[in-house]
Amino acid sequence: MQGSAQANDQLIISDDPYHPANHICTLCRSFYNLGWVTGTGGGTSIRKGPHIFIAPSGVQKELMQPENIFVLDYATTSYLRKPPVLKPSACTPLFMAAFDMGAGCCIHTHSQWAVLVTLLVERDAAQKGEKLEDTCFEIEKIEQIKGIPQGRRKQGMLGFFDKLRVPIIENTAHEEDLTSSLEAAMDRYPDTYAVLVRRHGVYVWGDDVQKAKTQAESLDYLFRLAVEMRTLGLPWTTS
Amino acid sequence: MQGSAQANDQLIISDDPYHPANHICTLCRSFYNLGWVTGTGGGTSIRKGPHIFIAPSGVQKELMQPENIFVLDYATTSYLRKPPVLKPSACTPLFMAAFDMGAGCCIHTHSQWAVLVTLLVERDAAQKGEKLEDTCFEIEKIEQIKGIPQGRRKQGMLGFFDKLRVPIIENTAHEEDLTSSLEAAMDRYPDTYAVLVRRHGVYVWGDDVQKAKTQAESLDYLFRLAVEMRTLGLPWTTS
Amino acid sequence: MQGSAQANDQLIISDDPYHPANHICTLCRSFYNLGWVTGTGGGTSIRKGPHIFIAPSGVQKELMQPENIFVLDYATTSYLRKPPVLKPSACTPLFMAAFDMGAGCCIHTHSQWAVLVTLLVERDAAQKGEKLEDTCFEIEKIEQIKGIPQGRRKQGMLGFFDKLRVPIIENTAHEEDLTSSLEAAMDRYPDTYAVLVRRHGVYVWGDDVQKAKTQAESLDYLFRLAVEMRTLGLPWTTS
Amino acid sequence: MQGSAQANDQLIISDDPYHPANHICTLCRSFYNLGWVTGTGGGTSIRKGPHIFIAPSGVQKELMQPENIFVLDYATTSYLRKPPVLKPSACTPLFMAAFDMGAGCCIHTHSQWAVLVTLLVERDAAQKGEKLEDTCFEIEKIEQIKGIPQGRRKQGMLGFFDKLRVPIIENTAHEEDLTSSLEAAMDRYPDTYAVLVRRHGVYVWGDDVQKAKTQAESLDYLFRLAVEMRTLGLPWTTS
Repeated sequence: MQGSAQANDQLIISDDPYHPANHICTLCRSFYNLGWVTGTGGGTSIRKGPHIFIAPSGVQKELMQPENIFVLDYATTSYLRKPPVLKPSACTPLFMAAFDMGAGCCIHTHSQWAVLVTLLVERDAAQKGEKLEDTCFEIEKIEQIKGIPQGRRKQGMLGFFDKLRVPIIENTAHEEDLTSSLEAAMDRYPDTYAVLVRRHGVYVWGDDVQKAKTQAESLDYLFRLAVEMRTLGLPWTTS
Repeated sequence: MQGSAQANDQLIISDDPYHPANHICTLCRSFYNLGWVTGTGGGTSIRKGPHIFIAPSGVQKELMQPENIFVLDYATTSYLRKPPVLKPSACTPLFMAAFDMGAGCCIHTHSQWAVLVTLLVERDAAQKGEKLEDTCFEIEKIEQIKGIPQGRRKQGMLGFFDKLRVPIIENTAHEEDLTSSLEAAMDRYPDTYAVLVRRHGVYVWGDDVQKAKTQAESLDYLFRLAVEMRTLGLPWTTS
Repeated sequence: MQGSAQANDQLIISDDPYHPANHICTLCRSFYNLGWVTGTGGGTSIRKGPHIFIAPSGVQKELMQPENIFVLDYATTSYLRKPPVLKPSACTPLFMAAFDMGAGCCIHTHSQWAVLVTLLVERDAAQKGEKLEDTCFEIEKIEQIKGIPQGRRKQGMLGFFDKLRVPIIENTAHEEDLTSSLEAAMDRYPDTYAVLVRRHGVYVWGDDVQKAKTQAESLDYLFRLAVEMRTLGLPWTTS
Repeated sequence: MQGSAQANDQLIISDDPYHPANHICTLCRSFYNLGWVTGTGGGTSIRKGPHIFIAPSGVQKELMQPENIFVLDYATTSYLRKPPVLKPSACTPLFMAAFDMGAGCCIHTHSQWAVLVTLLVERDAAQKGEKLEDTCFEIEKIEQIKGIPQGRRKQGMLGFFDKLRVPIIENTAHEEDLTSSLEAAMDRYPDTYAVLVRRHGVYVWGDDVQKAKTQAESLDYLFRLAVEMRTLGLPWTTS
């Protein structure tokens, strides 16, 4: 019931700066400064035990307060706490797909470097006559690739000589409609911790908040580097 | 009378950080960090009930204090408060045009991305032999477009498959002389919440401060993305 | 005598944040964040009545403290205060040339946009077979030009339709050796408030600190815009 | 013994902000903001007398605390203090190579400008049919070069007319395997205070923390400038 869901403030009130309701606010402020959540775009969600904490839709992410946070019961996907007035994030089903993969945190950015990378891959595919459905961003032999894990089925991080592949799915009119193609990409790329969305941004997740955040940073570093490389006529892969 | 107008300090003294006189100062500090109001350029105005609050002309926007704010009576456009020494913003009639459209806040930036977009559209028009008077910036199929409202006559935001159009007007020697062409652009594009000024910057408004600010951010994101796309040879529209 | 010059701490101790010794430190911190004084480069000097306050050479500008500031007597150019250990700025004679023109503050930056503009003008001159001695940076019909004054002999700022000209002098092995060519440029361009130094940076001055700072910001905005315009193939002037 | 090594907290607890354990944390926060240590990349080490202080591997550099710092005995290279859980930096042998050259501080960044410079030199060498083993980054006649020392065997800084050469070594799968080629580069370029690592980043060292930091800033300024110059078709050297 929404009435009781509104009352569950004990779920989001804590003196601990790493309590998810506080942590999401801190993260969103720094993501704003990185240009990832400009103009209410993007979002972040943390799982802690049975609870999912989610930033609301349509708010200025850098000014968000713990009382703005939605809390879901992961098992039933029902709301344990709903802030009055605010709308839940349209990314909610996408975040849930990441939690179903075992993630502890999921970050969605509108980074311009992510968007540009998807546009460049789109043009490359068109020029080679390839289908968009099969596209992914590929880069290799850059040290920062070592900031990305090998995958769920393996221990450790990618190596310098490994090729990083991030699948790209097509954008849809409504964000929640991305869920099935996101899940399909997760199936096709079972070791990926990120999915790019064409002309939209990227979803990155990790086993915990620190891993999700540092993986999101490493990927954004690689996306920006890739754009600069393209401007200078440098190839992303050598093979 | 200017004497009494100078004395009306109660109009700008408040402990509330969201009082317009305080809020304009906070906004201008963050706009400075975004590169929107470099070197005293740009400005911001908020309407609250019968009063219009306006940042002065020619001051360092990031250092502005509430006592620097001008207050106008919206109905009569006469000054209720004038800070001594300072000059009212040359943008005042342009801000008033936005308030006449129902805006609660209007933001004027000199963002370099906005200026570059107007220059690129100018060159495109010249190459196609089109008249400058009819130019507008057009972009489509970028998620961030959903941060811009459909227009005054409709509820809700633009969709991913909608084309965003921002009209561009020609700059004039004196800022106040932009008023008639700004109003003409508002007439031609009744659903726009922004007007670009060639070689100058952009005016963005919204129903309230949050909407004006987040719309200005979404537009600036799109302007910068558009410039990067052009550098990489990527088209803004697919049709 | 250096002994007594070291003791004159009353010249740089003040609770007033706008006292020159404090103000230079605040300015240098923000200039560092703008990328103007990276790695001890650049500098700032303020004249207040008979005294000239100058940031030292070779220090981290963002960490500078009032006790690091040199104080000169303007009339005699002798040091009234010398911090022990530190070296006076090699820019000192260049700052003095600006004060001789009536400036109240002079700012020297190593901005990469300033350096790139001088390189682009150098190549343009070579391609046209022009002599480097006569080169200056020219841009017109950009609103931000209105942030630059018309000149010492006229009241008010440049207009939108005026052409901004900033002379460029050749760099020398030793910074103090720039003085005569800086003064020659001031003679040739009696209305300029700035001189670019090829492959080095820019000197900007103004009647007071606020004017020098906002003019330096407006110029840096124009230098960066000019570089972006060149990347996009857009001309700086239309004539 | 790791047990006692964990207990040596007196080595990293100090009220002095310039104590190496505190200073490394402050430096890493600012390096994060410069984009040098994104996503746990990069690192920093300071020598103070007989002790070497090193940031750990795999942590968020901007959130690091003094208790996260490893301390080594320089003479024996054995750990005097090991934070529980954390792993020592894989850069440790590389930092030690710099200390063996007499450095007081060594900084390792993943700066994108450093990476791009190594890629551009790689392509230039391929186009000229030169061997990668002999490549170095060369730039001349840029004022900021004066922020780099002439070398260990000479007093003072490089001059404006000197050519800066920074050797580039090839990256390896494991960071510690860079040690022998780093040392070989130090032998071939006995006056260098920095070595670029292809597709990876840069190692910069200096006689003390201030020198290492300001030299790292000057180099990064030159790397970024070099990338912008290449985008604009401007050569790095004139000979």
